[in-house]
Amino acid sequence: MTQPATIRSVGVVGAGLIGISWATIFVLSGRDVSIFDANPDQRKTALDRLQTNIALLRENGLVDEAIALGNAHVCGSLEDAVTGVDYVQESVLETVEVKSAVSQEIDRAIASETLVGSSSSGIPASAFTKDLVNRERFFIVHPVNPPHLIPVVEIVPAPWSEGDHIPTIRKFMSDIGQEPMVVEKEIEGFVLNRLQGALLNEAWALYSEGYASADDIDRTVRAGLGLRWSLMGPFETIDLNAPGGIADYAERLEPMYHSVAVSRRNPQHWPGSAILKAKTELEERFSGQLRTERETRRDEWLLSLKRAKQGQKTG
Amino acid sequence: MTQPATIRSVGVVGAGLIGISWATIFVLSGRDVSIFDANPDQRKTALDRLQTNIALLRENGLVDEAIALGNAHVCGSLEDAVTGVDYVQESVLETVEVKSAVSQEIDRAIASETLVGSSSSGIPASAFTKDLVNRERFFIVHPVNPPHLIPVVEIVPAPWSEGDHIPTIRKFMSDIGQEPMVVEKEIEGFVLNRLQGALLNEAWALYSEGYASADDIDRTVRAGLGLRWSLMGPFETIDLNAPGGIADYAERLEPMYHSVAVSRRNPQHWPGSAILKAKTELEERFSGQLRTERETRRDEWLLSLKRAKQGQKTG
Repeated sequence: MTQPATIRSVGVVGAGLIGISWATIFVLSGRDVSIFDANPDQRKTALDRLQTNIALLRENGLVDEAIALGNAHVCGSLEDAVTGVDYVQESVLETVEVKSAVSQEIDRAIASETLVGSSSSGIPASAFTKDLVNRERFFIVHPVNPPHLIPVVEIVPAPWSEGDHIPTIRKFMSDIGQEPMVVEKEIEGFVLNRLQGALLNEAWALYSEGYASADDIDRTVRAGLGLRWSLMGPFETIDLNAPGGIADYAERLEPMYHSVAVSRRNPQHWPGSAILKAKTELEERFSGQLRTERETRRDEWLLSLKRAKQGQKTG
Repeated sequence: MTQPATIRSVGVVGAGLIGISWATIFVLSGRDVSIFDANPDQRKTALDRLQTNIALLRENGLVDEAIALGNAHVCGSLEDAVTGVDYVQESVLETVEVKSAVSQEIDRAIASETLVGSSSSGIPASAFTKDLVNRERFFIVHPVNPPHLIPVVEIVPAPWSEGDHIPTIRKFMSDIGQEPMVVEKEIEGFVLNRLQGALLNEAWALYSEGYASADDIDRTVRAGLGLRWSLMGPFETIDLNAPGGIADYAERLEPMYHSVAVSRRNPQHWPGSAILKAKTELEERFSGQLRTERETRRDEWLLSLKRAKQGQKTG
């Protein structure tokens, strides 16, 4: 097993929203970044979009000095973008076919110590890396969109991934300011979307059974649960919610939560009628607001949380 | 049905952490507040603790002017605290026996238009209001602790509660700066703890099956899911996460989420061994930190979110 002592150079394959957001993070951390996208239009606008991301972070006080883009460049071929780099972040279209084809190209071009992370949000690495020569150096490195505003990253090995590379990737992600976590073995939805799915499944069940409006269910999270969870996560939250800590909490409340699980032992699909009703409710709630305005408000909120967390760390 | 046009005076029954937090909110909104607790020590310190809450909010720029406590007073009997008020918030010990006994006392003393909310987090109103004379005016009005930092409030009627009072309580809660939501009919755990429980159950399953450490599961929420959820809630989040909105998102991802639910159709209890392991992990994570320091950090975070949301509304 060989691996780079420190990851200094990065190849970004796929220059859509996620790829350029990754490139933003890599550039800001001082890495050499080479970018490729199969679509010439994406290549042409890549550096402009990178600049836009950096400008937004700078306006929000999240980038101190003037950042030069000299260490980022766009390549005319995938091979040029990944040959000789320490790490490749692949963010191409999420289908097994496309991931397979692009991973094969990467596999042929990389050096013997290059590590590869795929931004796949659902397809596990085992579905598209089995026959690669360097398959032990391919991982899922799954961000939340957009990663330059939401720091968590799931690192998920395939069964044949070399586990000794995981600390290297984890440290690299920490070094560049992300918040890596490790999913020890493959599971459908990884950890993040399983947690989101558990909450969503309960939300849809409550909504379709008439317990609350979509807006009121959203309010329960945005003005309640989500406030603590934006700082602490579920285990730390309950550890502070009983005088004797997490075991005391479990002793008091596990029976109720188990009963909630038992009541959902016959999982129903999200009903089509409920989906249509929620769609209508949301359209009314946001009538007169452009989707882009809503996205901007979300991103401004994420930027303010990022600032608040930075203040906390240094404070 | 008679009901107060506007709620101007409030009786606070139970002056523990939650009762005093409620009193803080009522005082800051200019209501006349009369406080009672069966424990003389709680009565003696009630106004000091109220002052401490207000001072914290003032230091954090959340209370503009100097607030006089002239409109808050402590009563020597429950009867004195609730007689003639427009609304009673009851926050006594959460057992059916205590809630029943105190609710009977309240029932005997209130005027014919007084509305009553119980801070009960799990016991439904039907378990302790059935035989009351004024039972149609008793509701669950469940806050998250502490309500002066976390605004959501669940309003839950008993089967015999008069539904026409719900808009009155909801408007009152909005008027005083809380974020009320309505649970249309009783269900175990109401909405907030069912949503929390769904996520917790999945978190414990993933943890006990060795998919990730407790810290990494917490990180997935605090550096990922929780950031968006502190602004938007689950439905609004997925509405922005697919180009065609919530129905498009459901079309793409419901099968995966359903599969997650199906994989948990035999719900397991949180395993005792996993609880002990998580307890040890958390003790290591926070070694050298006092519980009160951790609580202070959480409350400072909640204060900063409160400021950020106020800025957003006026901005």
